[in-house]
Amino acid sequence: MSKNRLVYLPLGGAGEVGMNCYVYGYGPADKERLIVVDIGVAFPDMDGSPGVDLIFPDLDWLKARKDRIEAVFITHAHEDHIGAIGHTYADLGVPIYARAFTANIGRRKLDEYGVGPKAIKTASPWPKTVKAGPFKVGFVPISHSIPESSGLVIDTPTGRVVHTGDFKLDEQPLVGEAWDPDLWADISKPGVKALVCDSTNVFSREPGRSESTLGDNIKELIQSADQMVVATTFASNVARLKTLADAGRAAGRSICLLGRAMRRMVEAGVETGVLADFPPTISPEDALDVPRGNLMLLVTGSQGERRAASAQLAQGKYRGLKLKEGDMFLFSSKTIPGNERGVIRIINQLSEMGVDVVDDNSGAYHVSGHANRPDLQTMHHVVKPQMVVPMHGEHRHLREHAKLAEAGGLQSIVAVNGTMVDLSGNAPKVAEYVETGRTYLDGSVQIGALDGIVRDRIRMALNGHIMVNVILEGDEPIGEPWVEIKGLPEIGDSKAALVEVLEEDLNQFMMRAGAKTLRDDDKLEDELRRIARKTAQSEIGKKPEMTVVISRLN
Amino acid sequence: MSKNRLVYLPLGGAGEVGMNCYVYGYGPADKERLIVVDIGVAFPDMDGSPGVDLIFPDLDWLKARKDRIEAVFITHAHEDHIGAIGHTYADLGVPIYARAFTANIGRRKLDEYGVGPKAIKTASPWPKTVKAGPFKVGFVPISHSIPESSGLVIDTPTGRVVHTGDFKLDEQPLVGEAWDPDLWADISKPGVKALVCDSTNVFSREPGRSESTLGDNIKELIQSADQMVVATTFASNVARLKTLADAGRAAGRSICLLGRAMRRMVEAGVETGVLADFPPTISPEDALDVPRGNLMLLVTGSQGERRAASAQLAQGKYRGLKLKEGDMFLFSSKTIPGNERGVIRIINQLSEMGVDVVDDNSGAYHVSGHANRPDLQTMHHVVKPQMVVPMHGEHRHLREHAKLAEAGGLQSIVAVNGTMVDLSGNAPKVAEYVETGRTYLDGSVQIGALDGIVRDRIRMALNGHIMVNVILEGDEPIGEPWVEIKGLPEIGDSKAALVEVLEEDLNQFMMRAGAKTLRDDDKLEDELRRIARKTAQSEIGKKPEMTVVISRLN
Repeated sequence: MSKNRLVYLPLGGAGEVGMNCYVYGYGPADKERLIVVDIGVAFPDMDGSPGVDLIFPDLDWLKARKDRIEAVFITHAHEDHIGAIGHTYADLGVPIYARAFTANIGRRKLDEYGVGPKAIKTASPWPKTVKAGPFKVGFVPISHSIPESSGLVIDTPTGRVVHTGDFKLDEQPLVGEAWDPDLWADISKPGVKALVCDSTNVFSREPGRSESTLGDNIKELIQSADQMVVATTFASNVARLKTLADAGRAAGRSICLLGRAMRRMVEAGVETGVLADFPPTISPEDALDVPRGNLMLLVTGSQGERRAASAQLAQGKYRGLKLKEGDMFLFSSKTIPGNERGVIRIINQLSEMGVDVVDDNSGAYHVSGHANRPDLQTMHHVVKPQMVVPMHGEHRHLREHAKLAEAGGLQSIVAVNGTMVDLSGNAPKVAEYVETGRTYLDGSVQIGALDGIVRDRIRMALNGHIMVNVILEGDEPIGEPWVEIKGLPEIGDSKAALVEVLEEDLNQFMMRAGAKTLRDDDKLEDELRRIARKTAQSEIGKKPEMTVVISRLN
Repeated sequence: MSKNRLVYLPLGGAGEVGMNCYVYGYGPADKERLIVVDIGVAFPDMDGSPGVDLIFPDLDWLKARKDRIEAVFITHAHEDHIGAIGHTYADLGVPIYARAFTANIGRRKLDEYGVGPKAIKTASPWPKTVKAGPFKVGFVPISHSIPESSGLVIDTPTGRVVHTGDFKLDEQPLVGEAWDPDLWADISKPGVKALVCDSTNVFSREPGRSESTLGDNIKELIQSADQMVVATTFASNVARLKTLADAGRAAGRSICLLGRAMRRMVEAGVETGVLADFPPTISPEDALDVPRGNLMLLVTGSQGERRAASAQLAQGKYRGLKLKEGDMFLFSSKTIPGNERGVIRIINQLSEMGVDVVDDNSGAYHVSGHANRPDLQTMHHVVKPQMVVPMHGEHRHLREHAKLAEAGGLQSIVAVNGTMVDLSGNAPKVAEYVETGRTYLDGSVQIGALDGIVRDRIRMALNGHIMVNVILEGDEPIGEPWVEIKGLPEIGDSKAALVEVLEEDLNQFMMRAGAKTLRDDDKLEDELRRIARKTAQSEIGKKPEMTVVISRLN
C-alpha cells in the first residue's frame, strides 16, 4: 500500500456561496504536491462587513506551503472563481491555467496589478491536458452562464477526480458549449474516484431550463414596448446579453452597453471569438440621438449594487441618459438572497419615475446557471463516481447534496472550508481540519476578518461613539474633561445636552478622585469609561463605544 | 356647495411596508376634524438604521393639530399597526378604539408606559359604530392572520369611506372571522365614496389560499417526525399557532411556547375568547422531562431576529433546551424581503447541528395573510367604490394597485406618505403635500431619521474613525499630536503603524504651522483634518470619519 494520499481541501466556497478556492494534494502526508482550483471573491454587506471592498479566502495555509504548489486552474471567469487572482498572484507566484475566454478576463485583472499576460497560460479543452506535478488536468467543456465554463478532469496516481466547476445541463446554451452527456460519460469511463460537485441549486426540485427557452419571451416583451427599454443581468452572463441584444435588434432598437464590467465581458467575448456575432453597439453619447422607441440599454447592477448603472439610472441621469414615464426596465436576473433591499430600492425608484418594471417572478425572463436537483442526479449517474463531495454551497446545500448522493447509493461527505478530506480510500474520510477564514480588502489594505477592525465598525454603527479627553499634570487635572460624541443623540432623557451631562459627571469624578487613581493611566481610564457608560445608559439608554485619551503634561 | 372637505393623509405605510398610520379629516380646509387609523412601527436594519430599536412614523403634523384629533382607531394587533401606541399615546392623548383582542394587546403595550387600561375603549363590531366628531366609524370583521382584524366603515357627511385594513379573502380562517362577501356587499349598498385598500400582494397573480388548506400538510409532516419538532411563525399568527399546536397534539406531542411575544399573543387570545380551544401548553422546565419524540416547541423568530428563540436555539441551548441531529425545524412562514440573511444564517446553523429544516418553498406550510391580485379585484367588485386609494405597500405596490383599479374602470391615485388627498369630488385629488418622515426609537431617546445621528453611525461603519488630539498654549503646541483609531487597520501600506504615520505627519505640520493658524481653532482643525485625511488615503486607501479635539491651556 502506498504511503501517498490524495486529498481535497476547500479554502473557500464550501459552507458559503462565493470566494471559491479548492486545493487538491497528492503525495506523502504533509508533503503532498498541491494544485489550486479557482481563487474567487465574495462581496461584503453592511450586516457583516461594512466598508469592506472585497472578501477573499484566507490563503495563509497555501502561502506557508508555497513551494509545494504546482499551479492554479481557473474553471470560469465569474468573480467568485477568478476575482482574487490579481490580489493573490504575488503571494503564490505559480502559473495559472485557464481557457481562452477566462484567460482573457484574468489577464485584464492581473494587468491592474502590473502582472504581465504570460502569468496566465491558455489551456486547450479536453482531451488536451496540463501536467502539474503528479496531476494531469483537463478542461472539460460544460454549460453554465458564462462562456467556456469547464469542469476539470484531475488525474492522479490514485485515480481520477472530476471537479464539475459551476454547471448546468443545457443542451442549447446559445453561447458557449452545450452539455454533452456522451463526452462526460466518456471521461468517466475509466472510473471516477470522486465527483466534486456544484451544490447551489440542490433545493430546486424541477429540472433546470435551457437558456434557449427565454429568447421568444424576451423578444415578445421587447416588441411590446414603445418607449425606451432597459435590461439588466449579470455582466458576465454573456449568453443572456446576446439574447437581450438580439431581441432588441429584432425590435429595431440600437443597443447601448452601460457599465464597465459589461463592456469588458462583451469585449472579451468578441476578442476570443465566443461572441463573434454580438450585434453592433452604440456609445452612450450616440444613444442620446436615438429616438427612445428605437433604443435599448443593457446595464450592470442587476443585484442593486449602489454604484452600478441600474442604481444610477434609478436615481436620475446617467451618462446623459434619463428614464421617463412609460419606459420599460427588465430584470433578466434573479436576486441573490441578501441583495433584496438594494434591488427593491431600485424598483421603487423606477416606479416613482413611472417606469414599468418587469422582473423574473414567473421565470419567463431568467433561468439559473446552476444544475437543479434532478440535474445533479443525472450528473451522478453519468459520472458514476465512488464518492460525491458536494462543494459550492452553504452548509444546508452541502448537507442536502450529500444526502441526495447517499440516497443514490454513493458515498458522500459534508466538507466545509478547512476540512481536508482524504479521497484515497473507498469512502471520503476527514484527514484533518485546517484553519481557514476570510481576508478583507479594505481600501488598499488586506485585513483578517477576525482582526477586530470590522467588529469595531459594526459596534460604532450599533452603539455610537463617545470620546473622552482629560489632561493632567501629575495628579492635577488641567481644565475639565472634554467629551465628543458621534452617532449619538445630542439631547438625552434629562433634556440636557448629552455632552454636557457627560462632562459634568466626569468632572465630578476627577475632582474627587484620589492621587493614586489620577496617576495611574489604566485605572483612570477604567473609571472614566465606567462613569461615561453609566451616564450614557441613564441619559440615552445605550452603551456606546468609548475612546478615552489621557494627556499628561510634564 | 359645502366648504367642508373630506381628506385622506397617510403618515406611514404608503410607500413602504410597515409603520402604518393614516389620517382622515372632515371640515373646512385646514380646520378639519381628524381621526387616526393605526399607529404602527417598522423595524430597523443594518443597511439603513443600525443600532435603532424601532421606527415610528413622524407624528409632528398630528401633534401640531392635537386639538383637532377626535380619536385613534386600531384595525388589528400587528406591530406595524399598533406597535407605536405606547410611545405616542402621551403626544396625542385622545381615546383609542379597538376590538377586544386588539385592545387586550394594546393595553399590555400602554401598561409598559404607565398608561391605564381605560385609554383604550373596546369597540363592538359592525353594525355598532363609534361617533368621533363628524365621523361615525364601524369595525367590520374581515379575515387576516390575526384575530379580530377589521376593516373600517368611516361615515362622513360627504359619504362613506371603506378602509380595508390588512385583509385576505379567507372563508375558513380557523381562528377569527371569515371573509363574508354578503356583509361587505351590505355595507357597500349605500354607496362607497372611496375604498382605501391593502396593496401588499398586488403582484401575486393567483387567488390567495385559505389558512385551512395547511392543516393536513402540517399534520402529515409532524406525524412523520420521530425526534423533537420545532416550528416557528409570526408570534401574532394565532391561527397558525393553533394549526401547528393541534397538529402537534394529534401526533401525541406536548406543546411548549418559547418567546415572550408568542406567549403574550396566546394569552390575549385565550383571555378574549378567540382562542378558547388552544391546546394546553407546558413550560420550558417541564419540556425538559418530555421525551424528544413527544415534544413540540412553538418558537418566535421566523424572520431570523437575532435575539428571538429561533436564533438562540440555532446557536445552542435556550432555556435548557437543545436541538440535536434528526430533529425537525419548520419555518411555517415567509421570509420578508430584507430578512433573508438572518433566516439563512439560522438555517445553516441548524444544518450544522444535523437538524432537518423544512421551509415554505412549496407553499405547503404557509399561506399569506394578504389579498392577492384577483382578491383585490373581488374586493373592488364587492364594494363598488367611486375611487380606490391604494395603501399598505411600497411605491411599486401602490402604483400597480392603482393601475389595477383603473383597468377595472375605477378612479385611483398613488398617494405616498405625506400626500393629502381630497376625496370630496368624484375623483381623488391631491390637496397638498405634508412633510413626513420617520422617528427612530434609539435606546430610550426618540430621534429623527434625518438628524444625522444614524448617518454618522453608518459613516463610521463604512469608513472607520480617526481621532486627533492636540494641546496648545497660545500658539505653542504642547507635546505632539495624539491619534487614536477605531475600525481601521493598524498597519498601512507603508508597513508602519497607521497611528504613528498620522502622528508624524500631523506633528510635522504643527511644527511648521504659523502662529495665525495655531491660534485659530477652525483653521487649525481644518488643516489637521486635511492632513490626516491625506495620510489615511495614502496609507490605507480610505477616507475615515474624523474627530479633532484642540485643547488650549491658559
